[in-house]
Amino acid sequence: MPTGALGRLLDLGQQLCAVQETLQPVGEPAAVLVLAADHGVAAEGVSAYPQEVTGQMLANFQTGGAAINVLARRAGARVVVVDMGVQPRGTANFLHGPAMTHEQALQASARSRQIVAEKLGDIRVLALGEMGIGNTTSASAMTAVLTGLPAAEVTGRGTGVDDAGWRRKIDVVEQALRRHFPRGIGDADPIAVLSAVGGFEIAGLVGAALEAASRRMLIVLDGFISSVAGLLAVRLEPNVRGYLVAAHRSVEAGHRAVLQTLELNPLLDLSLRLGEGSGAALALPLIAGAADIMRDMATFDSAGVRDRE
Amino acid sequence: MPTGALGRLLDLGQQLCAVQETLQPVGEPAAVLVLAADHGVAAEGVSAYPQEVTGQMLANFQTGGAAINVLARRAGARVVVVDMGVQPRGTANFLHGPAMTHEQALQASARSRQIVAEKLGDIRVLALGEMGIGNTTSASAMTAVLTGLPAAEVTGRGTGVDDAGWRRKIDVVEQALRRHFPRGIGDADPIAVLSAVGGFEIAGLVGAALEAASRRMLIVLDGFISSVAGLLAVRLEPNVRGYLVAAHRSVEAGHRAVLQTLELNPLLDLSLRLGEGSGAALALPLIAGAADIMRDMATFDSAGVRDRE
Repeated sequence: MPTGALGRLLDLGQQLCAVQETLQPVGEPAAVLVLAADHGVAAEGVSAYPQEVTGQMLANFQTGGAAINVLARRAGARVVVVDMGVQPRGTANFLHGPAMTHEQALQASARSRQIVAEKLGDIRVLALGEMGIGNTTSASAMTAVLTGLPAAEVTGRGTGVDDAGWRRKIDVVEQALRRHFPRGIGDADPIAVLSAVGGFEIAGLVGAALEAASRRMLIVLDGFISSVAGLLAVRLEPNVRGYLVAAHRSVEAGHRAVLQTLELNPLLDLSLRLGEGSGAALALPLIAGAADIMRDMATFDSAGVRDRE
Repeated sequence: MPTGALGRLLDLGQQLCAVQETLQPVGEPAAVLVLAADHGVAAEGVSAYPQEVTGQMLANFQTGGAAINVLARRAGARVVVVDMGVQPRGTANFLHGPAMTHEQALQASARSRQIVAEKLGDIRVLALGEMGIGNTTSASAMTAVLTGLPAAEVTGRGTGVDDAGWRRKIDVVEQALRRHFPRGIGDADPIAVLSAVGGFEIAGLVGAALEAASRRMLIVLDGFISSVAGLLAVRLEPNVRGYLVAAHRSVEAGHRAVLQTLELNPLLDLSLRLGEGSGAALALPLIAGAADIMRDMATFDSAGVRDRE
């Protein structure tokens, strides 16, 4: 084909070849893993929605009525939903202490590693989604720690908190950073960051990414939360980077910083901010198309088309 | 769902509702109409590829080996390929005279209107693709006329012409504008523009867009060429604008100008410059997903999810 004519689709195809160690890559079977958990910090009024929405949306995912179900169906992808710690088993409020123990962070990661191994072992493209009222506050705090950027630059409006809530959210992140990282962020250990200001679903996404990479699955990051989890996974195991694809650029302020740190250029820019894995599900047909192109497209030579002089 | 959480996917869903006059829109059946034709101006050395490639690629489309076949299959879309005037029936070299007669422009448009009516009458989403060595030169000349921008700003490298070829291409466009529009562009009649510097496949795309809009199909523009055809169709019939979706932003310089004139924001930005309808085919799953969301997604109320306070 003409040089560069397929642009980023070809980059994607080449990444699939590298990940799957083949010149005949596949984009299927694909799945969306949606991890849900509650956040103690939601008590600080940092979200536009009440905390019980996490569990209600989890039930909605399970009955197949949510956006992620609709979009995964369209992409021919399975949806696996996991309760990683919905109320009353959510994290502690990290404004007053660690969100979870070091042990709990490792357990959440190990648990989702096992789920990927047991329920998703045949999957070649794994999209990572999440649900958790309050989790953009957690992700903003982790982004500030991991990138060194000020809280105000990496804290957005989540599902749409108002101005007062947004200022409160920035204040909560700043207080949490002072509390948990009083000597600055230094070379923060990813598990320590998760324990201090993380979430159970985020720890789970980190484990899922590690397991998926170890099984040579392409990993499709959705928005801000799953991208932060991707960054944590890369900090734990740098080889994971080669398995990551950024599905879309969400409107969350911190997402851009995380993508820049990961040097990932998202496939879609649709101003989504729904989470659930919805952006990742929308990217699955592009990924499958890239695999098809690598596998099934005729070359100029095989199609009898004359190349340039 | 949270306000604005689905971003541009919701805009797309709402456009589908308006186009189809329903709150239960569909993204299927979809098709890609690929029109091919040759351009006399190719004799000026404005393309990286020899003119015979048009016919060879047409054969490749018909046997199903091209990128557009692969991507349309992925999207579940039919491909209809039409020879609108491949060598020796291509246009005249517009450097020395009109590319076609006024009558020929109208005939090409009428012919593809009839093809849409007869072969694609059941289609709800119609993607417009093309093939024609030399056709970015024609599209650049038409863009200069339709937008009033200088040739150098709207002339790109097509499938990858070198520096000398690119300068030649700009020069050809400038000469053609002086020849065919010596008193400036004024309020150029779309059919006159097509006759002077157009192509048979482009005239066909104009007719296809007019027919598709009259049948309430969503029209998915691919790259530079089909977007110019979309702009011509809108100049002929302003109501067509509401039926248009821009699939992607190609790397062709003139494409941006055409999209701005049409006030269209493309769904994808993957640095494609293949043509054929490949970008439009990649956008079809997003469009189908938007339709699914409008039709199948549970509301907060129906799913028992508590809305914000």
